[in-house]
Amino acid sequence: MRLRVKLLDLESGGKFIAVLNREDAEDLGVTGLSRIKLSYKGKEATAIVNVAVESVKRGRIGLYNEVKKYMGLRGEEEIEVEAAHSPLSVYYIRNKLGGRKLTYEEILEIVRDVVSGNLSEIEMAAFVTALHTFGLDLDEATSLSLAMVETGNKLEIKKPLIVDKHSIGGVPGDKTTLLAVPIIAASGLTIPKSSSRSITSAAGTADRAEVLMPVSLNIEEMREVVEKTNGCIVWGGTLDLAPADDMFIRVEHPLSIDPLLLPSIMSKKKAVGANLLVIDIPTGRGTKIKTIGEADLLAKDFIELGRRLDIKVQCAVTYGEQPVGYAIGPAIEAWEALNTIMGKSQSYDLMDKAVNIAGILLEMSGKSSGKEIALEILNSGKAESKLREIIGAQGGDPDVKPDDIALGSERFTIRADKDGVVLWIDNASLVETARLAGAPKDKGAGALLHKKIGDKVSNGDALVTLFAERSTKLQRAIDIFESVPIIGVGNRMEMLIHEIKERPVAKKTFVLER
Amino acid sequence: MRLRVKLLDLESGGKFIAVLNREDAEDLGVTGLSRIKLSYKGKEATAIVNVAVESVKRGRIGLYNEVKKYMGLRGEEEIEVEAAHSPLSVYYIRNKLGGRKLTYEEILEIVRDVVSGNLSEIEMAAFVTALHTFGLDLDEATSLSLAMVETGNKLEIKKPLIVDKHSIGGVPGDKTTLLAVPIIAASGLTIPKSSSRSITSAAGTADRAEVLMPVSLNIEEMREVVEKTNGCIVWGGTLDLAPADDMFIRVEHPLSIDPLLLPSIMSKKKAVGANLLVIDIPTGRGTKIKTIGEADLLAKDFIELGRRLDIKVQCAVTYGEQPVGYAIGPAIEAWEALNTIMGKSQSYDLMDKAVNIAGILLEMSGKSSGKEIALEILNSGKAESKLREIIGAQGGDPDVKPDDIALGSERFTIRADKDGVVLWIDNASLVETARLAGAPKDKGAGALLHKKIGDKVSNGDALVTLFAERSTKLQRAIDIFESVPIIGVGNRMEMLIHEIKERPVAKKTFVLER
Repeated sequence: MRLRVKLLDLESGGKFIAVLNREDAEDLGVTGLSRIKLSYKGKEATAIVNVAVESVKRGRIGLYNEVKKYMGLRGEEEIEVEAAHSPLSVYYIRNKLGGRKLTYEEILEIVRDVVSGNLSEIEMAAFVTALHTFGLDLDEATSLSLAMVETGNKLEIKKPLIVDKHSIGGVPGDKTTLLAVPIIAASGLTIPKSSSRSITSAAGTADRAEVLMPVSLNIEEMREVVEKTNGCIVWGGTLDLAPADDMFIRVEHPLSIDPLLLPSIMSKKKAVGANLLVIDIPTGRGTKIKTIGEADLLAKDFIELGRRLDIKVQCAVTYGEQPVGYAIGPAIEAWEALNTIMGKSQSYDLMDKAVNIAGILLEMSGKSSGKEIALEILNSGKAESKLREIIGAQGGDPDVKPDDIALGSERFTIRADKDGVVLWIDNASLVETARLAGAPKDKGAGALLHKKIGDKVSNGDALVTLFAERSTKLQRAIDIFESVPIIGVGNRMEMLIHEIKERPVAKKTFVLER
Repeated sequence: MRLRVKLLDLESGGKFIAVLNREDAEDLGVTGLSRIKLSYKGKEATAIVNVAVESVKRGRIGLYNEVKKYMGLRGEEEIEVEAAHSPLSVYYIRNKLGGRKLTYEEILEIVRDVVSGNLSEIEMAAFVTALHTFGLDLDEATSLSLAMVETGNKLEIKKPLIVDKHSIGGVPGDKTTLLAVPIIAASGLTIPKSSSRSITSAAGTADRAEVLMPVSLNIEEMREVVEKTNGCIVWGGTLDLAPADDMFIRVEHPLSIDPLLLPSIMSKKKAVGANLLVIDIPTGRGTKIKTIGEADLLAKDFIELGRRLDIKVQCAVTYGEQPVGYAIGPAIEAWEALNTIMGKSQSYDLMDKAVNIAGILLEMSGKSSGKEIALEILNSGKAESKLREIIGAQGGDPDVKPDDIALGSERFTIRADKDGVVLWIDNASLVETARLAGAPKDKGAGALLHKKIGDKVSNGDALVTLFAERSTKLQRAIDIFESVPIIGVGNRMEMLIHEIKERPVAKKTFVLER
């Protein structure tokens, strides 16, 4: 069938989408979400069908920008259109829906089609849901990791030993990487660290680091920085180490499920060539992993998956019931990290976490007393020098001072309304508040804790200061702050958590960070 | 945030979709597939977010036709936009993803949101996938049936006893309803029959009936026809008996799964007020249900679900290894049915099936020798009179003759290339061929068998004639015909079915008919 092109000036986010009039679709024997093959002057593309009743008339075909660009169309061309078969990967997805285990070849085909935008959202949602409901065993996790490496970029560095660290996330204010990477690099080990931006949090490591230096490097620039400084702190998004993952996240996020956690993390570590890896598993209410038992099981899977991928993995189960340090939000976290590495802060938990993580890697690489070495590197100022070296290599100002960092000028401080002790901090509410204030988009937005769990508090003491770049956003944050408590102050633990008077709706907080 | 409306002139098929520039989306704290609330002059709507980089500029919001119509917009208005929470049903879907059983209230909320276009395709795909992988128990099937009745139209007829029949489909050429409904109505029972159009077959009952009479009646017109004639054969699509089902089908079809089979069928029967119901379960290779054991298990579920919905159900497990009668395709099936009810055909299997189905309902209503009564009604011409009465009441020509029915004028006959006996007919290939010839869209397209299983064949005998309205479509059908055999002729059964030389891809035929 020949149809005349109507450009829709719309983007699908990667997928090839074509809109047919309902009558033409019936003539072709296709329905919404079927596939059609488009041909024009020797150029071919397969697109997913949407059906229109009014907006695309008979004899015409509406095309999204992705198809237009790929086929080099300008509108009003007559192109040839025919029904196309579903890609093989759809059959493999159906196998998983039937509870069957997938082979490496099948998983590779699915991941390839994901990367090339060849699967519809419905098909991807079914795949991710099936992985969630049936689970994926370690063979499948290995295959997924390798397929994601296969379909992405790889970092090639000529060093005998490459180390890496990763936190599965879920604890707010975790700027450990900004300290741990310079410590490790200063010790002589090579750590090509790529990080993600925030998805559901107030700041991802890439968001924090970007306050100090450019992080959107390509893989060649990353290699140069690492070869020069032994380390880097860059954003994974521009590296395309495992591009399938970004597509999976688009589907996982609205469903609040994350069956791809292990392969997603491990594929990126494999792609940078890591030999030794420490995985940080923050544990506690409000994080991804609620109990130590759960953390142990997850650690076992990471270690075994690492063994299959030829990466030696150790895990660090860490305390996640409150933020790491005092600051939440990109700029203020960078400010806290810089102050801490310069020896000018009281963020002892942050320092402890950084030297522990660095220490584990040092011991894995054959040194003894890793934590002590790490602490010495931090206290001696060698870590600060290394951080400034990395900042400079990535194109930032190596002489940056904490005062250079712009924090949001719209501020509001919450104060205690009684004497007592800080009993708890609600991570999820704190993150929600910081996000309403504008984080992570507005880098200066966020929150600064003045007290942490166990600290004594007097009536009128400052508990938290909110930062925003715009007064409307500050007000949004204050509004939620007043209805949802973030910090609990009291003398005795109150035992009633909450009352359930009717069938509850469990609106669980969902942490999706990579 | 205030954004200026850009009309996109696109339809989503029911859902409210708004396209934001990526920067504005970040400022609102939403991502693709999040929800936003739109307000303009007191009118509010919740829409699902798509994100654009180029096609929608900062400060603008692209709207699909559904939102435009609902809010009465003309373009260029400044409207207020804010982030909205996910509807409660999303949390309930997550519960199902966790393997938990859903309550009636939760299912009703999900179905309501499905009907009002409030769920994204990803969320609906996850729900349908979870129903498929975990299964739904009879409590959930009951809840889904009732929720689908609750959210649709109901037929109210003042008769003490209302009967109905339904085939779960999967056998080609099944025009039983065109005979069974007149037989049942002529016996004095009331049968308000609604049927579907084809989804994956060459013709649905509504497609066949439409050749003889209008079938797109609304529920009030349906009531009038039934009160006048005791019966009707109308399309379910314009009745809105269970509008959620059409939305579910959109997602089930590309995934080739059908977990909603039972609630979908039973909700529509409940909505027309049926007290007695016979379900036809065609069984055999190439149908939905491959074995008699499977058919028995499904029958048990139908009977139990009926009991909970206060509908007395019996099932008829029928032979489905070859088409019913000889004709496949809307017009030619109507032609065969009309000939048969007029006593002018040799389609004995069709007659047998129709009187068996009608006989079961007659016996369920308290009569004895139901099949004999049905046969007498058919042979005496009372069924034909009743069919003509229904045709007239629905607005068709009550005097229609078989010769009035236009069959495709492009024809091609396949002949036997050896002597022997018909050993098998491949239903799936036959349907594919008829669809390539243009069925069901081109009413005159289809196929006519000249021989059925067990018939003796001589070299050169006509086996099948293909009909099409257009020569290009006939050629498409002939092309596939030559590569995929439809009818097997031989003297002895050949024992080798096919060889598997490498890892096979199971491209199973999927039958989705309601």
